[in-house]
Formats: sequence, structure tokens, C-alpha cells
Amino acid sequence: MAHLGARITELREGYVEVCTSYRPELTQQHNYFHAGVSAAIADSACGYAAYSLMPVDGSVLTVEYKINLLAPAAGEELIARARVIRSGKTLKVCSAEVYTRGNGAETHCATMLATIMCLPGKPDRSG
Amino acid sequence: MAHLGARITELREGYVEVCTSYRPELTQQHNYFHAGVSAAIADSACGYAAYSLMPVDGSVLTVEYKINLLAPAAGEELIARARVIRSGKTLKVCSAEVYTRGNGAETHCATMLATIMCLPGKPDRSG
Amino acid sequence: MAHLGARITELREGYVEVCTSYRPELTQQHNYFHAGVSAAIADSACGYAAYSLMPVDGSVLTVEYKINLLAPAAGEELIARARVIRSGKTLKVCSAEVYTRGNGAETHCATMLATIMCLPGKPDRSG
Amino acid sequence: MAHLGARITELREGYVEVCTSYRPELTQQHNYFHAGVSAAIADSACGYAAYSLMPVDGSVLTVEYKINLLAPAAGEELIARARVIRSGKTLKVCSAEVYTRGNGAETHCATMLATIMCLPGKPDRSG
Repeated sequence: MAHLGARITELREGYVEVCTSYRPELTQQHNYFHAGVSAAIADSACGYAAYSLMPVDGSVLTVEYKINLLAPAAGEELIARARVIRSGKTLKVCSAEVYTRGNGAETHCATMLATIMCLPGKPDRSG
Repeated sequence: MAHLGARITELREGYVEVCTSYRPELTQQHNYFHAGVSAAIADSACGYAAYSLMPVDGSVLTVEYKINLLAPAAGEELIARARVIRSGKTLKVCSAEVYTRGNGAETHCATMLATIMCLPGKPDRSG
Repeated sequence: MAHLGARITELREGYVEVCTSYRPELTQQHNYFHAGVSAAIADSACGYAAYSLMPVDGSVLTVEYKINLLAPAAGEELIARARVIRSGKTLKVCSAEVYTRGNGAETHCATMLATIMCLPGKPDRSG
Repeated sequence: MAHLGARITELREGYVEVCTSYRPELTQQHNYFHAGVSAAIADSACGYAAYSLMPVDGSVLTVEYKINLLAPAAGEELIARARVIRSGKTLKVCSAEVYTRGNGAETHCATMLATIMCLPGKPDRSG
């Protein structure tokens, strides 16, 4: 998160928004955000959304995710909005939508579906 | 690829190996490679494997991928080995296995299944 | 569709609802709908949603999908609601939510993210 | 499995082969096996492969899978070969390859990556 300059901009039970701003090292030759950055903040947002429904001494681990890249991630900011679809005791299924913001408009650039594992009482393994 | 310090270490038709070495900024609090780094080099390796079967003036675009994270990515090097499973004209389906190398042994830390789109005659859109 | 007893119950541009009713052969030992039935009607719904945005002489082909099974599919009816998230010329990305209906309530039992290929002018390859 | 006429044709620790033979009701308008049949036997094979590494009183549950459909499933037999890639205590990650057999040759028609949950001591919830 720190390396990507990402920060949590909204947090409710089962819902998290994560943002990062344009930096040259996060973009590729066309000044688009790298797909890897979209995936990383969407994965982080899913993890935090899952974590928001857990006991404070627990931690989370991403089991797997699928991401579809929908459009080039051109813009000044990259935003991932994640919510928990199914909250089981051991596993939480989350979805995240990634948008870029530029010139006052948002473009939907990626969608993720993720499975997050809850590790109760293991705060130090937080992913 | 440059930002991750990644380099192609093997290249055949339909097969690519990509490696990156330990750097503090690629790792998290436990000195494991970030999951995002595993995903990014596996995605790159899939793209190059697809590209190895295309005309030189074409380019590739990742449509989507799924990754399962299998084990913590602890080690000195992170290696992604990708191959094309199905080579269609428009779409290539690729799989990648990600390993860490440390103390002379390899650990399987992630597996990816990806769909790559071929853009013939559009060299500048190379993802 | 016929084999599953599935029928389209709602159809708009980019949105389709498909339903099937309880039959012994679609269920397993606990009278839940088989996961395979949930996947099949969600896949069909995604295909029809994509098709609803295409020229009439075209056809669709499922490239890939991911499904998360969220809860046992117990109930009298199984309903898949699919929408197109991103409508490209060649590929359409669709999501589907599967619910069971029983005793007047709906339960969310599966979620799918799918990539559908459009085959213009090839009506006979319709999947 | 019974409904699909599927049977286990090979079983080792962490590896299972499942086959089904041509039946009109498993095929679509072109006499190809339905994609849903490929997905169902691949999912079953992954479940059995996971189960082969578990205590006998346990059961398995498919958390999620992704399938890429690679080629039309034309042939007399449909074969799914699954193996466990990563065997954790709670989750097992499995891959399956689906082939059709006809005229003495095999065609690779689908590939699956699945996450299976182990439910120790709950034999009756076997999926």
C-alpha cells in the first residue's frame, strides 16, 4: 500500500474504498496506470473489506482472485471499491470495481472477484 | 518490467521464463515478495509467451487472469514460467507458475490462468 | 437450456434473467440444485446478455468464466441474473448472480464473472 | 456424477481421472458435449483429487473455479484429469484438464483452476 501511495478513503463494515494518485513509476509508456497497480489496489481493497468484518486480532490472506481488465487506466487517480459478497467464518468472497478519475469523470477499468481467508488470532500474518 | 527489475531468462515459442531478484521495495513486512509482484511477473510472462507466437508487428493485451496464491513468496529470486495452452488467432490462453528460489531450492508460490488478446498490426498498444 | 428446463424470464439490452424450477434430476442428495446447474444457467444468462447487444446474425461463445459458490442452492427455483459490464466489439465481460427462491425469499448462492466472445455473421455457432 | 454417466477411471493420491461417454442429452445442437458437462466433470475430478488427500471421515466443498473453454468438445468420450497443486489443511488448490477422445486421438478442450474446501469430520456434506 505504501509503495503504491495508496490510502483508504472510505471504510464501512464490509465496504472499503482505496485510492492512489498518478506517479510516473506506477504508469507505463502511455501514462496509463499499470494493470499490476489496478490488481494490487483491488486486492488490497478486498482484503480490507474482509478485514472490516473480522475480530481485531485476526488477519487476512488472499487465497485467489480473478481480474478482468476493461479499459486502459488513464487518469489522475485510480480508485478501487470493494465489498464483501459473502461473509463466511473462514472465507469471505469479495468483489472490487476499479475506476480511473480524470477531468471530472470516472472510467470503469477493471473488475475483480476474490476469495479471502480469515486467520483469527493471527494478527502478525496480515497480508 | 523495468520497475520490478524483471528480465526474460528463457524464451522459446510459446514459453517464457521471467525472473526478478530481491529488492526491499518489492517485499512486505516479512521480507516476502508482495503478491502483487508475483501477479505482475506472471502476467508479464503470459503476455510474452503469447507474443512469442505472434507476428512481430502485433501486440498483446491481457483480457483477464486468475491467480491462486499458494505459499508465501520468501526467497532471493521470484521466477514466473508461462506457456501458451491454446493459441487461437484472436485469443491465447496461457498458464504461469511462480516459484521463489532461495537456499538452492524452489518453492511453488502461485499459479495463474490468463486470457491474452492478440492485436495484429498494432505494435504501440503492447501491454 | 432445454435439458435444464431453463427459460428466459426477463430480457433487456445488456441484461437477462434465466430461471429453472426444481426437478429431481437437477439436484443432489440433499435436494439442493447441483453446482453444475448454477454454473450452467449463469453461463447461459451471460451469453444471452452479451447476445442482446449484438447484431442478430452474430453468435456468442464463452471464452472463460469464474464462479464462486456462496451457499447451498436449496429452493424451488434457481434464478440467474446477468448483465454486461463491458461491451467491446470482440469481447463482452459479463457478471451473473445466482439466487434460489423458496418460501418467498431469495438466497444468493453463486456469483460469476465471464468473458464472452462475439462471432459476427456466424449464427450457427451460437453456444 | 450419476446423472452425467461419469465414472472414476483412475485414482491416486492427489490425482483423479473422470470419464463420461457420449449421450444425446449431454450434447448440444452440433453433437458437442455441452460446456456445462465439461465444467461439471472437471469440478467433480478436482473434488475427488482433493478428497484423495483427506481423512476418510471428511468431505469437500467447491469454493470456486475458473474454466477456460479451449475447443469444441466433439468426440465419443469426455475425460477430466485433475491434480492437487497445493494441499493445505483447510483449502486445496486443484487444476484439471478436460479432453475429448474420438477416432483414437485426444483434443484438449478445457482447463480449470479450482479452490476446494476440506470439511473434516463432516462426511454428510460431501459435494
